[in-house]
Amino acid sequence: MTKWVYSFGKSSNEGNASMRNLLGGKGCNLAEMSSLGLPVPPGFTITTEVCTRYYDNGEAYPAELQAQVEQALASVEKDMGCKFGDARNPLLVSVRSGARVSMPGMMDTVLNLGLNDDTVQGLIEQSGDARFAWDSYRRFIQMFGDVVLGVNHHEFEDAIENHKRDAGIQQDTDITAENWQEIVAEYKDIVLRETGKPFPHDPKDQLWAAIGAVFKSWMAARAITYRRIHEIPENWGTAVNVQSMVFGNMGEDCATGVAFTRDPSTGENYFYGEYLINAQGEDVVAGIRTPQSLTKLGREKENSALPSMEESMPEVFQQLDDVRLKLERHYRDIQDLEFTVQKGKLFMLQTRSGKRTAKAALKIATDMVSEGLITQEESLLRIDPQSLDQLLHPTLDPKAVKDVLTRGLPASPGAASGAIVFTSEDAETQAHEGHKVILCRQETSPEDISGMHAAAGILTSRGGMTSHAAVVARGMGKCCVAGAGDLHIDVKARLISVGARQFKEGDILTIDGSTGEVMAGSVDTIQPEMSGEFATLMGWADERRRMVVRANAETPLDAKTAREFGAEGIGLCRTEHMFFDPQRIQNVREMIFATKEAERRAALDKLLPEQRKDFAGLFEIMSGLPVTVRLLDPPLHEFLPHTDEDISSFAKSAGISADLVHRRLSDLHETNPMLGHRGCRLGVSYPEIYEMQARAIFEGALEAAAKTSQTVTPEIMIPLVGAKKELELMRAVVDNAAKAVFAEQGRTLNYSVGTMIELPRAALTADKIAECADFFSFGTNDLTQTTLGMSRDDAASFLPAYVGAGIYERDPFSSLDTEGVGQLIEIARDKGRSTNNAIKLGICGEHGGDPASIAFCEKMGLDYVSCSPYRVPIAKLAAAQAAIREGNSKTIALQGKKAGVA
Amino acid sequence: MTKWVYSFGKSSNEGNASMRNLLGGKGCNLAEMSSLGLPVPPGFTITTEVCTRYYDNGEAYPAELQAQVEQALASVEKDMGCKFGDARNPLLVSVRSGARVSMPGMMDTVLNLGLNDDTVQGLIEQSGDARFAWDSYRRFIQMFGDVVLGVNHHEFEDAIENHKRDAGIQQDTDITAENWQEIVAEYKDIVLRETGKPFPHDPKDQLWAAIGAVFKSWMAARAITYRRIHEIPENWGTAVNVQSMVFGNMGEDCATGVAFTRDPSTGENYFYGEYLINAQGEDVVAGIRTPQSLTKLGREKENSALPSMEESMPEVFQQLDDVRLKLERHYRDIQDLEFTVQKGKLFMLQTRSGKRTAKAALKIATDMVSEGLITQEESLLRIDPQSLDQLLHPTLDPKAVKDVLTRGLPASPGAASGAIVFTSEDAETQAHEGHKVILCRQETSPEDISGMHAAAGILTSRGGMTSHAAVVARGMGKCCVAGAGDLHIDVKARLISVGARQFKEGDILTIDGSTGEVMAGSVDTIQPEMSGEFATLMGWADERRRMVVRANAETPLDAKTAREFGAEGIGLCRTEHMFFDPQRIQNVREMIFATKEAERRAALDKLLPEQRKDFAGLFEIMSGLPVTVRLLDPPLHEFLPHTDEDISSFAKSAGISADLVHRRLSDLHETNPMLGHRGCRLGVSYPEIYEMQARAIFEGALEAAAKTSQTVTPEIMIPLVGAKKELELMRAVVDNAAKAVFAEQGRTLNYSVGTMIELPRAALTADKIAECADFFSFGTNDLTQTTLGMSRDDAASFLPAYVGAGIYERDPFSSLDTEGVGQLIEIARDKGRSTNNAIKLGICGEHGGDPASIAFCEKMGLDYVSCSPYRVPIAKLAAAQAAIREGNSKTIALQGKKAGVA
Repeated sequence: MTKWVYSFGKSSNEGNASMRNLLGGKGCNLAEMSSLGLPVPPGFTITTEVCTRYYDNGEAYPAELQAQVEQALASVEKDMGCKFGDARNPLLVSVRSGARVSMPGMMDTVLNLGLNDDTVQGLIEQSGDARFAWDSYRRFIQMFGDVVLGVNHHEFEDAIENHKRDAGIQQDTDITAENWQEIVAEYKDIVLRETGKPFPHDPKDQLWAAIGAVFKSWMAARAITYRRIHEIPENWGTAVNVQSMVFGNMGEDCATGVAFTRDPSTGENYFYGEYLINAQGEDVVAGIRTPQSLTKLGREKENSALPSMEESMPEVFQQLDDVRLKLERHYRDIQDLEFTVQKGKLFMLQTRSGKRTAKAALKIATDMVSEGLITQEESLLRIDPQSLDQLLHPTLDPKAVKDVLTRGLPASPGAASGAIVFTSEDAETQAHEGHKVILCRQETSPEDISGMHAAAGILTSRGGMTSHAAVVARGMGKCCVAGAGDLHIDVKARLISVGARQFKEGDILTIDGSTGEVMAGSVDTIQPEMSGEFATLMGWADERRRMVVRANAETPLDAKTAREFGAEGIGLCRTEHMFFDPQRIQNVREMIFATKEAERRAALDKLLPEQRKDFAGLFEIMSGLPVTVRLLDPPLHEFLPHTDEDISSFAKSAGISADLVHRRLSDLHETNPMLGHRGCRLGVSYPEIYEMQARAIFEGALEAAAKTSQTVTPEIMIPLVGAKKELELMRAVVDNAAKAVFAEQGRTLNYSVGTMIELPRAALTADKIAECADFFSFGTNDLTQTTLGMSRDDAASFLPAYVGAGIYERDPFSSLDTEGVGQLIEIARDKGRSTNNAIKLGICGEHGGDPASIAFCEKMGLDYVSCSPYRVPIAKLAAAQAAIREGNSKTIALQGKKAGVA
Repeated sequence: MTKWVYSFGKSSNEGNASMRNLLGGKGCNLAEMSSLGLPVPPGFTITTEVCTRYYDNGEAYPAELQAQVEQALASVEKDMGCKFGDARNPLLVSVRSGARVSMPGMMDTVLNLGLNDDTVQGLIEQSGDARFAWDSYRRFIQMFGDVVLGVNHHEFEDAIENHKRDAGIQQDTDITAENWQEIVAEYKDIVLRETGKPFPHDPKDQLWAAIGAVFKSWMAARAITYRRIHEIPENWGTAVNVQSMVFGNMGEDCATGVAFTRDPSTGENYFYGEYLINAQGEDVVAGIRTPQSLTKLGREKENSALPSMEESMPEVFQQLDDVRLKLERHYRDIQDLEFTVQKGKLFMLQTRSGKRTAKAALKIATDMVSEGLITQEESLLRIDPQSLDQLLHPTLDPKAVKDVLTRGLPASPGAASGAIVFTSEDAETQAHEGHKVILCRQETSPEDISGMHAAAGILTSRGGMTSHAAVVARGMGKCCVAGAGDLHIDVKARLISVGARQFKEGDILTIDGSTGEVMAGSVDTIQPEMSGEFATLMGWADERRRMVVRANAETPLDAKTAREFGAEGIGLCRTEHMFFDPQRIQNVREMIFATKEAERRAALDKLLPEQRKDFAGLFEIMSGLPVTVRLLDPPLHEFLPHTDEDISSFAKSAGISADLVHRRLSDLHETNPMLGHRGCRLGVSYPEIYEMQARAIFEGALEAAAKTSQTVTPEIMIPLVGAKKELELMRAVVDNAAKAVFAEQGRTLNYSVGTMIELPRAALTADKIAECADFFSFGTNDLTQTTLGMSRDDAASFLPAYVGAGIYERDPFSSLDTEGVGQLIEIARDKGRSTNNAIKLGICGEHGGDPASIAFCEKMGLDYVSCSPYRVPIAKLAAAQAAIREGNSKTIALQGKKAGVA
């Protein structure tokens, strides 16, 4: 016979914390606490399997359920020394849902179940407090009416208000036992009127109705939506917890409270919590009375005059503090507790792992290692790598009032307020004058780089998580909200419209790049502070991770930031970013307008010294570490002037007609530039461009090597290769440049040549390509675009709906689509290694900074990940976690693995 | 000891036709003819392995070569009864290159080798003709000087002219023996002057120099280029043929000629050829004298007064005619012959498979089956499917003079002349007035469809083989030259510039869509004629092919054409083409501008009856055959007005502000529309669009079924699926529409729902997608774009260079990239069948009409191919050939396989 019901409490305790799947989070922890000898009011849990069975069988319970519930109830009655429905000494219970994971949308709590016109008398008798008893009764009807019978809770609230008005009562505390009794009668009328049926008198009927309501709530619309979004399978089901009531509101020797075993906001190790004397749990949350601090320390911290529990109930507090230490030692993590004191006796109602801020998580995880509670590995696994972002960027003051206009994509973390500007030039001018500005564009292009640098934040109405704005902002560590589609940004009119509201140039906006929120006006921000725990944790991570973590960087500033954050090299230096400097763009444009190779070479010759300087500087900053330089990648038209003004100015300085510029622009126009004449296709068409870049790299490297006396090892990366022959041709260009430079200078250095794997065809033919590549760097941005046939610049119009509908679990530009793109990575890895076992494999797309993607890279056995400088710590932690989880950790922890509850 | 030299001729014949790789094409056929007992002047072939060995060993010959050559030469001397270098009775030889395949750029021929100041006397003696002997000598020096010593041939020609001028000679026939002798002396001076060395006297030196020149020419720039283009491996090498000379210019009983065993232009079975009395081979080609017809029939056909060989040399002719029949029976194919008659004796100098026109190929292949020479299978394999295009479209008159301006891509076959127009509207207006026009655009868009229909041909300056213009033109069977990048088409100025030339509206151009040529003025064209042989061959193909051949069609005209060409259904009906009708586009635009679902539905309701009519018509025309309808695919902005004029006119009729239209246009703008909000992404965002289309399909199908009393089986295809969930969602929309329509009408029909596989991710996750698909149709256009990361609209700027450099063997948009895209097809096939064994697999991209791609589809075991209506015959033949080659032919040929030379 299947066991559908598990008892917990004094005389019979059938569950434990490992049975979370069967008993739900709440149920299994009640049983666990009970078996630890903690004072848990007895009760029982109806398993999640009953829920599954219920829906599999047309909403019918298993035959044996009723008998098992009766038996468990009897056991509770025995423990409590009272009887369910007994008019003299009634057992009252609470009924609560409890799935494996906490899940909004499910039925919440029904308290005081078992009360009716008869048993209320027993409660009066037992408690000696008629007002308490009638209040408990009306609370029961209200909760039951709301969550079980579906009566709108306003009906009940209105009834109290009306009653108070009619009786001339000002404050709730003035409501008498008789008033409550009359309100109970009115409540019952409301239930009859609204449901067409009288309020159930029989406590058993009440119990089964409440159990049924919990199971039904599993299929409520909100629960279904929540499950879909959080990928919770429907067949997990929910458990139902039935527990004997204890009362914190039976008098001045009663209390109720919630607590954390440590401060969940700072992580400090002291008992943190609140309690209320003579109150029920909901009163603490409701905010009508001001809860008091648990400890004297807490009271002093809050500068409160209200006595702490430590002071007012020293004995019970001591008991509770013992429980706190016991639970932390047992669960080896910060716990979130609920307790009630009934007539001086402590009861534990819940324990669960405590939610905490990133800062607290860091402190708790490292403290617990010092305390010997957990191992360094466990400590590392406790921290959500993403949460480190909060520690590296300014955040909005959680107490500030926000006038949220809309929400875009959280494209680059951090928050900033500033005046609206619409052009890169304005951003620069105004920033120069000392103003903080938010650069607002439909989308950004490489021409906006200097404006983005100058702005405090970037806001776009188009583009996804890997749009130009998003990628560049992340690289700069600058906050960005992208693809806020509700905004109509009219650059010409210098106006932003959102709904009926309009904002003009100079108006203040605040953006939160961690949430995507766009707010009117200025909102206070909090600056990040780096703690010693951060360094400690990073140290542990470094000792364990297998994969190298590099940064994507091209400017000296980026490179310095990368080194500060602990990057172990540059995984992607995008040389084109070096071309947008105003002094250089003229030469770049001349090169593009050249119709003959000789003219093109003349323009390139002017660029060569500049590029050499770039590379020499970069190699110097990164000295001793590898630097991967990607040769020119974007289509040439990105470098051309676009506005009429720019065009005529360029035409003038280049001594050609504006007409010719227009014509060339039109010739270079592409329908799908992402799939156009770019990457190594440029190198194949104009080898002299790559030749110049290779020469600049080798000359720069030799210069840096001489200056720093360190080994400089350039890794030259050919972009957008789709066929081996392309790489062969381009490799020859690079090798020839190396030969020439080495011969001229009479010195040599080691270098390697590899390719991006960013086209499906490159992955599919990786065996051939690997024959002439020293490394593969997976360019997962473009690989995602091509594999999914989805432009990251255009996906904002449908991708949110796609993720919402569960077509893609997550934005595939933020978190690697392991099912699709991942297959190509695996194919490329296997094929690549089949012909070149020594080939180095890495990833340099945006995914290089995403923990889930990093876990996949570890699974794939890649050698390194490369991400934007500000994500280096995140990537390091994620890489360490992945290594530990895959059993690839470099360090075998000396502590060994302590046994413990998962 | 390796055999490096193979003799052929009377006494020793060591080779045969199967030794083509070793002896080259010329050498093996000389040996083969010789072994058939035909009169072949004796000689020997130095193998291709010597060539390979020569280059592998730093341009040195194998040690044994000299002895083997000496021995073979001795055998020739013995057969001929004369001696190499003998002053009395000298052996003279020719030296020719001969690779496996005929290869321009290789050394051609040196004749009369062995002559010097001594042996010329022997030739005088033997021939009794001093003028002939000295003429032969000077011809030898000239050829040897040119091709072996590298002396510019103008030097020799100038010498003759100068001599004639100085001697007052008007005509070549007036040059005397003495004149030739003096010219020989001058020639030797020229050689000494130009090379610094005297002309070699010793015939052995001459021979080895000529042999060396042949081998060296294997590495000549032109030969290398040719090999790269035609993918001929370098290590094939060339053979050298040394053959004793026979002379057609020794008197009136001598002659030389070339012949085809049948008419290579029409395929008629009569002896076709030309000869000249008293001439050497080069004279026939040089065009100084008018060659005479071989046969009386030929002479009469040409209306010539000059006697035929049949008439003037009846006996030798009879001998030659016997040889002709013998060779055809032996080789079982039309032969291209060279012969010489020396003093009344016939010598065969060459036989090879004859080049022929498509028309001739068809007739010969079918005739030879009737004649019992070859099997139907062989007949099918003899025809290049591509060549059928010549039979289905007008071609340029080969005799016409052409003023070629430039060459674009041969995007859609056929040729046409017409007046230049620049807009679709002008094309329609002028065509309506009876003018033939060429629509000239930078690129075309769906808005140009009606103009393209009206035009005689389409010319674009941008776009590749699968650009919009190319695809649509092929579908219409209309000639098109695409991506002619040298043209600057200025629509505003109504001017086309190419180099320094300009053409304005109304000027006449001619385009040849089979070659890509763009010509000034009008060029005569020849209309195609379909022969009975065509039907015969198609019948044989139909009996053998395994794959079904369908057509891509959406208009009634296309569908009718498809049926006429024998399509077995529609594989791709692009519903969006139905939306561009002027009456409908307004409704489509209203739908796009709707901001609420209700408004969108109202606009769709107006479209529904039109779509229903479309489908009913299509199903009726195709009745009894399956029709695959693809739901809306292109991004919505393709339907929006683009010019200011259109915008204001639409705004007016829709009753909204032009400003709003501009705003919506800007909102819908995409950076990479190919990767944007299109395909099923539209269906996911706006299910009501697909719902309307599905309803129209089912209503139309029921209507057509009732009308024709035939089974109508719609196959509904969801485009651009990348994840199973997308297909699930869209399939539900279709199934619900079916349910609703069937319920309303009280009738049902069978239908199926499938998807395009056109994204790499779809192929990679085909196992999951197949779980809810009835069929996969490989959309290889988009699959190529995404797999290669290459926009077909933009590839014209670099793809020709890519194909030229051998990065891709062929334009991957014309011929499937089997190495890359092919892998995804294989993955999708295997994964798809792993979860749905009954899944139907087909291809509907442009590649469906490309023979090489069709061969790949056969290899993959696909069920059908679908191509444009005009390519259906090509696809059928290609499918039959592929089935035969893969051993999948449906018919086991009754004839059996006749043994024969390959």
